[in-house]
Amino acid sequence: MLHDKPPLAMTMGDPAGIGPELSLLAWRERRRGDAPFFLLAAPAHLAAIARRTGIDAPIIETEPSQTAGAIERGLPVVPLENPVEAEPGRPDACNGEAIIESIARAVSAARSGEARAVVTNPIAKAVLYAAGFRFPGHTEYLGDLAKAWEEPAFPVMMIWSEALAVVPVTIHIPLSEAPKALSVDLIVKTARMVDRDLRARFGLAQPRLALAGLNPHAGEGGAMGREEITIIAPAIEQLRAEGVDAVGPLPADTMFHAKARARYDVALTMYHDQGLIPVKTLAFDDGVNVTLGLPFVRTSPDHGTAFDIAGKGVANPASLIAALKLADRLTR
Amino acid sequence: MLHDKPPLAMTMGDPAGIGPELSLLAWRERRRGDAPFFLLAAPAHLAAIARRTGIDAPIIETEPSQTAGAIERGLPVVPLENPVEAEPGRPDACNGEAIIESIARAVSAARSGEARAVVTNPIAKAVLYAAGFRFPGHTEYLGDLAKAWEEPAFPVMMIWSEALAVVPVTIHIPLSEAPKALSVDLIVKTARMVDRDLRARFGLAQPRLALAGLNPHAGEGGAMGREEITIIAPAIEQLRAEGVDAVGPLPADTMFHAKARARYDVALTMYHDQGLIPVKTLAFDDGVNVTLGLPFVRTSPDHGTAFDIAGKGVANPASLIAALKLADRLTR
Repeated sequence: MLHDKPPLAMTMGDPAGIGPELSLLAWRERRRGDAPFFLLAAPAHLAAIARRTGIDAPIIETEPSQTAGAIERGLPVVPLENPVEAEPGRPDACNGEAIIESIARAVSAARSGEARAVVTNPIAKAVLYAAGFRFPGHTEYLGDLAKAWEEPAFPVMMIWSEALAVVPVTIHIPLSEAPKALSVDLIVKTARMVDRDLRARFGLAQPRLALAGLNPHAGEGGAMGREEITIIAPAIEQLRAEGVDAVGPLPADTMFHAKARARYDVALTMYHDQGLIPVKTLAFDDGVNVTLGLPFVRTSPDHGTAFDIAGKGVANPASLIAALKLADRLTR
Repeated sequence: MLHDKPPLAMTMGDPAGIGPELSLLAWRERRRGDAPFFLLAAPAHLAAIARRTGIDAPIIETEPSQTAGAIERGLPVVPLENPVEAEPGRPDACNGEAIIESIARAVSAARSGEARAVVTNPIAKAVLYAAGFRFPGHTEYLGDLAKAWEEPAFPVMMIWSEALAVVPVTIHIPLSEAPKALSVDLIVKTARMVDRDLRARFGLAQPRLALAGLNPHAGEGGAMGREEITIIAPAIEQLRAEGVDAVGPLPADTMFHAKARARYDVALTMYHDQGLIPVKTLAFDDGVNVTLGLPFVRTSPDHGTAFDIAGKGVANPASLIAALKLADRLTR
């Protein structure tokens, strides 16, 4: 009865990173009633990691439809076709095809209905570039795979935690380019997608969006920068006219303490660190990266491959477990 | 015996802001053993604010040398020569001269030894500009007053709390100008002053400084901005050569969670919100603004005049009280 819905599909991520051991730990920490999940990976590689790290997790080779039964006995692994040869801490471009296959098949499973959401383990872009990968990152690749659906994708990164959810409007660009990259159109499109998905997936009847200013003190009336006046306020006005509950531009330094956070559901920030600093300060271990604007639910731990500690059995699975729980909650 | 040192001098700040009621509350919340302080203000104005807000605090007109005795009976107020006429919430340029007199006399008292530190209430720059004030802000004016001493002043703003202390290297400028304003020289001079004052005033034998990167992920090896390579890392190298314990450039989003904070005493950030966001997220009510690099100790609450709530008796004195306690600690 608990398992009458399809399982969650989890990708392997970089097999030389901490993804494999986190996946084993996520299985071991699983509680009755948690959503079943299967991992698209190489069974022999995972068994080797389990031995090496001493994590007591049997590997059950299976197929997606058998996940609910398999997961009672061990970690359900759906084997990849491409080979995996990985030493923890030593990323190798030879695994690029398997890493990409894992992501593509997880998305296919979501499309076919074999899986109800995709949870991705961390990848290292440099490894994939060496294998011919042509996307700026994970999220952009998922956006490309989403073209199999009819609706157009507009992937938006949200970092979600119980304490705070943030969406940076500009992300992985130099700070000096962030002011130039902002536009009314970008802010409006991003906020629309946030509003849509918080309604559709998070079940909020009227999501409350708080938009940060770009400059110190939100520009203090133009004295310390004018983007609030020329870009952010007009975007908020347009959003409000469309029925989106958007407030701001707020001074960024006073919008993240507990009382201020109670006034909104998600903060839209103008650049990466403006949102990532507060969410990682408040929820370092259990923040979840959620991609909004895709035709399927995708969550991910809010950390990287951590090659420096891979294979040592010291990595913390809290964020991956939080990613599984959130993917479950968003697709119930 | 407790009061064998000079008292602390507290400025009035803008009399139409929350400073007067916070000063009354700071007296009322005073505990035995707390350092005595006197306020440079207008006794009649303070008495009116006490009546209006219902804060039970007698006003004792006194002079600095009589503070320790006076404070047992009420709030010691050293009268200003300039008149004060203020309605809460209605800032008026007519008070400009009194506001400036209060600051100048507090600094004089620190110079003469009548006071051992200066604690400033919030001012509103626009009010002072209308009264002919020619400094960009409070701190710059204090820097100018410090010229009475022989050693050159290099005022550096630190926001201090029990959880986190931060020093932004660039402060009240548009975000788009922050990357251009950074230089090896500015970072080195700022960090030197932080190192000096954490030794001399905070009593740290070897202060540990952590420097943030400017860009997302501290630039990721140059992929997202090069200021880490061209400016911040060379500054750190120079500081280390001089014996300053400086580390970085660190990715800003992962340097403010509890475990990361345990590794340093103060974080130097490259722009205003990079430091103010985490400290106000963690210590919104009781952060203290400390000016390093002056020949005297100056602390201040980490908030503004709050004209919107002035006179209503709802303002929180926690930050002003924390500023008094820190000024005491730094001059014992």
